[in-house]
Amino acid sequence: MESYRSFLDAAHLFADDCRSIINSVRERGYSQELKLDRSIVTTADKDAESKFRENVTARFPSHGILGEEFGLHQSDAEYRWVIDPIDGTEDFVRGLPGYCTIIGLFFKGTPIVGIIDLPALNQRYYAAKGLGAFCGERQIKIQDFPSGYRASGEEFIHLPPRGAFFRYGGNAEVFDKLASDFPKHRVIFTGASHVYALTGGFDATIEWNLRIWDLAAAQILIEEAGGAYKTLRRSKDSNGEILSVVMGKPKLVAAIAEIAGVK
Amino acid sequence: MESYRSFLDAAHLFADDCRSIINSVRERGYSQELKLDRSIVTTADKDAESKFRENVTARFPSHGILGEEFGLHQSDAEYRWVIDPIDGTEDFVRGLPGYCTIIGLFFKGTPIVGIIDLPALNQRYYAAKGLGAFCGERQIKIQDFPSGYRASGEEFIHLPPRGAFFRYGGNAEVFDKLASDFPKHRVIFTGASHVYALTGGFDATIEWNLRIWDLAAAQILIEEAGGAYKTLRRSKDSNGEILSVVMGKPKLVAAIAEIAGVK
Repeated sequence: MESYRSFLDAAHLFADDCRSIINSVRERGYSQELKLDRSIVTTADKDAESKFRENVTARFPSHGILGEEFGLHQSDAEYRWVIDPIDGTEDFVRGLPGYCTIIGLFFKGTPIVGIIDLPALNQRYYAAKGLGAFCGERQIKIQDFPSGYRASGEEFIHLPPRGAFFRYGGNAEVFDKLASDFPKHRVIFTGASHVYALTGGFDATIEWNLRIWDLAAAQILIEEAGGAYKTLRRSKDSNGEILSVVMGKPKLVAAIAEIAGVK
Repeated sequence: MESYRSFLDAAHLFADDCRSIINSVRERGYSQELKLDRSIVTTADKDAESKFRENVTARFPSHGILGEEFGLHQSDAEYRWVIDPIDGTEDFVRGLPGYCTIIGLFFKGTPIVGIIDLPALNQRYYAAKGLGAFCGERQIKIQDFPSGYRASGEEFIHLPPRGAFFRYGGNAEVFDKLASDFPKHRVIFTGASHVYALTGGFDATIEWNLRIWDLAAAQILIEEAGGAYKTLRRSKDSNGEILSVVMGKPKLVAAIAEIAGVK
């Protein structure tokens, strides 16, 4: 069996290729279209995911692959690579800097490698099981609140935009409650919000009604940094699982899980 | 009288010094304290504004200066420089990348030069009356929606966090209404939101209950790019004026002004 380190090394190479493609498509210009769920896809998303799938298949022919654009390959494999080639395609198209490539490797459903690569910010965050979470050479550790902590509303948290709370069925009242309880919230709505939960930019990041590929790297990154990652809701439709999660400083994650009505 | 061009050239030099100080303080480490209004100030804010005031006084001794940290100098001068040395100090402290230096020059109250400089993103946006709005060499023009446009909720708009709507007196219901009408809203809460209204990242940016220095560059930037800038509310307390504004694509600005209850 290969080591987590060698899987991580491979993941970095795969992420390098995605970034080159995204940057070069961005420079050359791209075409875009609306998908069935009314989200946008560009040739950058498709080209990056295609190259990733080629790379995984060449290096790990027995592994499975799940990607936002091209679905599931080898569903019964023990190892499964998951990719969102551009998380935040609308932000990419509009020149907002938070779009990112999200890559995760899972062994029988457990995350073992995660990368979030942000081309516009020239930053990469990565983690592997037991090896810690890093940005470049710098290891990242999440500082929890001190004991006796109670949420006060002074915390910086990340919320997805209100629309995310009622797609796939209505929960907009959860947004309204959280926005009211945490009046210093921010809303950026890409995997950059997972990165900021990791680095302390946000005390916690809430994500609502996401697909598996959107969260492919978050859990391993946060947990390897000593943070907490908690699933708030889990449902399913014909396109697969729909997940709502909170991640960040453990005491605040627990408080938010309670506010969001999860025991 | 000096030309707008020469004022702009001077403003660039002032902004260069602010950026050097902010980057070097950021590298060396800084101390922070809570101000009376419970916002954070660091030595980077203070050192950058002090240097700016020195620079303005040396170059334009007859001009007035208004800064977030050190108040008003020569209140009766026809020319007034306005600075927020770090807009988004909490974001600066937390490593979120949207913090910026905002500089404006006003002649008898009319904005004639504006700069928003984003050290973490290595970007600078600037405009001067009649000369256009730019990022580096690239001139920026805001594309309005086509004629017959009606707001649909599909627009990307920027809202400040809900807390901003009820500081200085309650208007949180305006946040709730806008978040509900525009479910793809984002919330970043620094002058970066003015920049994205300029570049098309957001179709419109709403700011609520801000001070004059927070908005020192927005109007001239947006108007020089062909966008609309509209004051929604204006009040006053012992620290001066409190402004709520919307800026961006003209047809959406008009629609939001109506939603926000402004005729």
